[in-house]
Amino acid sequence: MRTILLTNDDGVTRPGLWALYEELTRLGEVVVVAPESARSATGMSITLHKPLRVKKILVKGRRAYSCSGTPSDCVIIALRTILKNTRPALVVSGINEGNNVSLQAVYGSGTVAAAVRAALMGIPAAAFSLAFRENTPVNPSWLRRAMPIAAKRSAEIVERLLEMNLPRGVDYLNVNFPPDVGPDTPVKITRAARTRYEEVVEERRDPRFKKYYWLHGRLHELEPGTDAYEVLAAGNISITPMKVDASVTDPVASEMLARVFAAVQE
Amino acid sequence: MRTILLTNDDGVTRPGLWALYEELTRLGEVVVVAPESARSATGMSITLHKPLRVKKILVKGRRAYSCSGTPSDCVIIALRTILKNTRPALVVSGINEGNNVSLQAVYGSGTVAAAVRAALMGIPAAAFSLAFRENTPVNPSWLRRAMPIAAKRSAEIVERLLEMNLPRGVDYLNVNFPPDVGPDTPVKITRAARTRYEEVVEERRDPRFKKYYWLHGRLHELEPGTDAYEVLAAGNISITPMKVDASVTDPVASEMLARVFAAVQE
Repeated sequence: MRTILLTNDDGVTRPGLWALYEELTRLGEVVVVAPESARSATGMSITLHKPLRVKKILVKGRRAYSCSGTPSDCVIIALRTILKNTRPALVVSGINEGNNVSLQAVYGSGTVAAAVRAALMGIPAAAFSLAFRENTPVNPSWLRRAMPIAAKRSAEIVERLLEMNLPRGVDYLNVNFPPDVGPDTPVKITRAARTRYEEVVEERRDPRFKKYYWLHGRLHELEPGTDAYEVLAAGNISITPMKVDASVTDPVASEMLARVFAAVQE
Repeated sequence: MRTILLTNDDGVTRPGLWALYEELTRLGEVVVVAPESARSATGMSITLHKPLRVKKILVKGRRAYSCSGTPSDCVIIALRTILKNTRPALVVSGINEGNNVSLQAVYGSGTVAAAVRAALMGIPAAAFSLAFRENTPVNPSWLRRAMPIAAKRSAEIVERLLEMNLPRGVDYLNVNFPPDVGPDTPVKITRAARTRYEEVVEERRDPRFKKYYWLHGRLHELEPGTDAYEVLAAGNISITPMKVDASVTDPVASEMLARVFAAVQE
């Protein structure tokens, strides 16, 4: 029976992970190895300077491994120690509470980082995230309702992924669900938006009249065809095919740079 | 006079930043905005949940802005607040103490993250890192000797960058110096190695006989043409042209995925 490794960055007890677990058990043996608590925005960090602990735990009667490290650590520990002689067919990360659209997510999100780590270790992977409604406090009852639907739609995607190979040059998929995801929400193949937000810096004064700054973002006008537009503006499911290698190997660019920087050596 | 924004992830007082500063002042007005202390492996994190402080400080008589956030925060604060109406010609990050070769660095390094952030905000950028000797404790006197040489070679590269536009499709450069960098060390245009290390998990027992794990890495055999090989094995200077967009826009891949996942909607 094939094995699916499941992780996340919100923590091993979160509903998004277990909604996905329920659906994925129909497709294979699901092994859960996830951070013991929230590790959002830890990116690709690996814990090298302190030892890691792994605990076997039960979450509502279901077995899981809880790890003191980051999502990236979880993938390494799972592939090298827990699964040892079993190569998983797929590494699945999510479902994240909140969207992971745009390149900001690709470089910053722990959910996506787990997929990148798996891809670097040669295993196909998919990251799943559920967008919240913009400018609305998160409503736990909405989360309980939306996560199982997002999980069903995730499992449909995973089922097809298990039947095929990713296209040449694609290492992992970054999947985002709109807040109102339903059984019939269309799926779009997208590209990553460069940014979702224009960075804004707000200057304030503390009670002692010293300056401090808050960073936040002002939503850009979103471009059709990008993950940000399809999920946040059009309300579709976005699948963005991703590769891990962002170096430019175009020979024209390389030769131009070689010509320019050859001069550095004179 | 053109402006160069200089930042790093080791902290505003580190010798790598100031060695670079000394060389870059000959090429333009250098504005230093850097983290108040080491922010290694913070990747692309942005500080949204707490306010940021920025201090004007003097480091050996030279003016700098010290920021309580990450390298990515520093770039945002600099471009939006400190430089306000001045668009820098280039954002320079470094010189990092330790190499930033391979895709692991691209996703995890704070030094590279500053360049990615600048590129996302539309400013060309370059990240500079000096590799340490493998398996040797860092020797401060070596650092004091090697940094000024790496800084001279960095300035030669920056000088050419200021005279040209980056080739189409290239957003920033990731530059690494070998530990023995000298005035005549050759420059190679490379691609990023996928990984430098094979991830190793070592299992140990604590004094109470409970298991714990250390993560470390075993050096791969390095592939010629990659940044890791050129810097660590061949002893050359590596310049890797990078783009920020890692989504796959190849129409063949997109159409294949659209065909497969269209079925999800039935």
